[in-house]
Amino acid sequence: MRFGLFVPDLNGRDATLLLTYLSGLTCTYENVMTKGGAFAACVEHGVALLMPDTSPRGEQVADVDQYDLGQGASFYLSATQEPWRAHYQMERYVVAELPALVESANLVHARHRSIMGHSMGGLGALHLYFRHPNCYERVSALSPIVAPSVVPWGQAAFRTYLGEDCNAWHSYDPCHLAQRCHGEQLSKAIRIDQGLDDEFLVRQLKPELFEQACAASGIPLDLQCHPGFDHSYFFVQSFMAAHIQWHSQNLSQNVKTTQ
Amino acid sequence: MRFGLFVPDLNGRDATLLLTYLSGLTCTYENVMTKGGAFAACVEHGVALLMPDTSPRGEQVADVDQYDLGQGASFYLSATQEPWRAHYQMERYVVAELPALVESANLVHARHRSIMGHSMGGLGALHLYFRHPNCYERVSALSPIVAPSVVPWGQAAFRTYLGEDCNAWHSYDPCHLAQRCHGEQLSKAIRIDQGLDDEFLVRQLKPELFEQACAASGIPLDLQCHPGFDHSYFFVQSFMAAHIQWHSQNLSQNVKTTQ
Repeated sequence: MRFGLFVPDLNGRDATLLLTYLSGLTCTYENVMTKGGAFAACVEHGVALLMPDTSPRGEQVADVDQYDLGQGASFYLSATQEPWRAHYQMERYVVAELPALVESANLVHARHRSIMGHSMGGLGALHLYFRHPNCYERVSALSPIVAPSVVPWGQAAFRTYLGEDCNAWHSYDPCHLAQRCHGEQLSKAIRIDQGLDDEFLVRQLKPELFEQACAASGIPLDLQCHPGFDHSYFFVQSFMAAHIQWHSQNLSQNVKTTQ
Repeated sequence: MRFGLFVPDLNGRDATLLLTYLSGLTCTYENVMTKGGAFAACVEHGVALLMPDTSPRGEQVADVDQYDLGQGASFYLSATQEPWRAHYQMERYVVAELPALVESANLVHARHRSIMGHSMGGLGALHLYFRHPNCYERVSALSPIVAPSVVPWGQAAFRTYLGEDCNAWHSYDPCHLAQRCHGEQLSKAIRIDQGLDDEFLVRQLKPELFEQACAASGIPLDLQCHPGFDHSYFFVQSFMAAHIQWHSQNLSQNVKTTQ
């Protein structure tokens, strides 16, 4: 597995925050690295940015000739179905294995952890945040898939990786997870930015469903909608610095995150 | 010819400055558009960014199977040699035809113009600035080729496009142009940023030669050298905002630029 890691040069100080960025369909770890425009903000705010790939890779890894399934399209979950089960275990990789690797290799030591993502990566950030409440202090997303159980991208992926069990689907669906969440996560704000000229807005993204789910459970959601922006990395680049700043300014005084 | 143009949304106000960015060898107009990380700074400082291609293109256009000659490698000059003379007239295109096009199409109206570039584009920015003193108020460059007459990239290109006449070479060589320049350009600062881990620094770039030429003619040169940075777009991205700010803060009160 290849990944990107940006460690700010802070004159010997450690980065304060290790922020994981999950990319969208068809991306590798490289897209945000080259096109995200994130690094100046990382230096300014003392943030290390961890950029995993979007799926397992290699000739031995199951794949299918579709851009939205298989390699490049893991949906960051723990697959239970054949032939995916063997390698499509991105949940464990993102939440535990990769952070452990970069720490044990002394690449970065940060007191805080949070997560964000774009599109499919926004979905991954949201479900991993809800499913692992001790791993990430905060979550934010750019044009995320928030209701995978009811949109084509999510339905195809969940059927493929998780089978037909709707309980399994809901356990990775932010709209369901928001309504099940409890404790500190109920009072922590979530930030989402969404372009209003996003070509996938109506059919695949449906941010209003997550807005309703957060309202129903009392989670403060800061949903910012931007006229004129599409789904591309020009959109990501336009709001990346604001997300990095948002994460760095919302750190707990008492750090409780563990793996 | 394709090009990129970023026009900031300033709530109805015109951009103050039209800044032309010239790219380096092998690039198209797209590299800086996707990897430059320039647009937030353009909005902040009211700058429209014009991104030309690096050469003429197309099946009818002369080419050679080398990354540093022919298509993708015009050196932004006016070729006098066959078979290049017909299409390799990037000087006229960048200085006059393209700005006239974007203005006549009402894409942008800016009171000021300046120019910058990276590598071969840094060379182009410098020679066009010196050769057309009424066109650009300021020039800056990122890891530019400053002494083309004495480095392999420049010698190969000048021999190909300009023939063996050393006067023609010197008329596109910033080290020679700096020593010939007069009038207002003598007192206007030029900014150059250079990575010290740039793999082309010693053989192709030689910023010390331009430093000597500027010192000899009294041109204030702000040459900033950065340990740890290479020649890539990660370097460009790291200093792009500083260059956009620099250009926007050094505008004349009395605008005298013409085509």
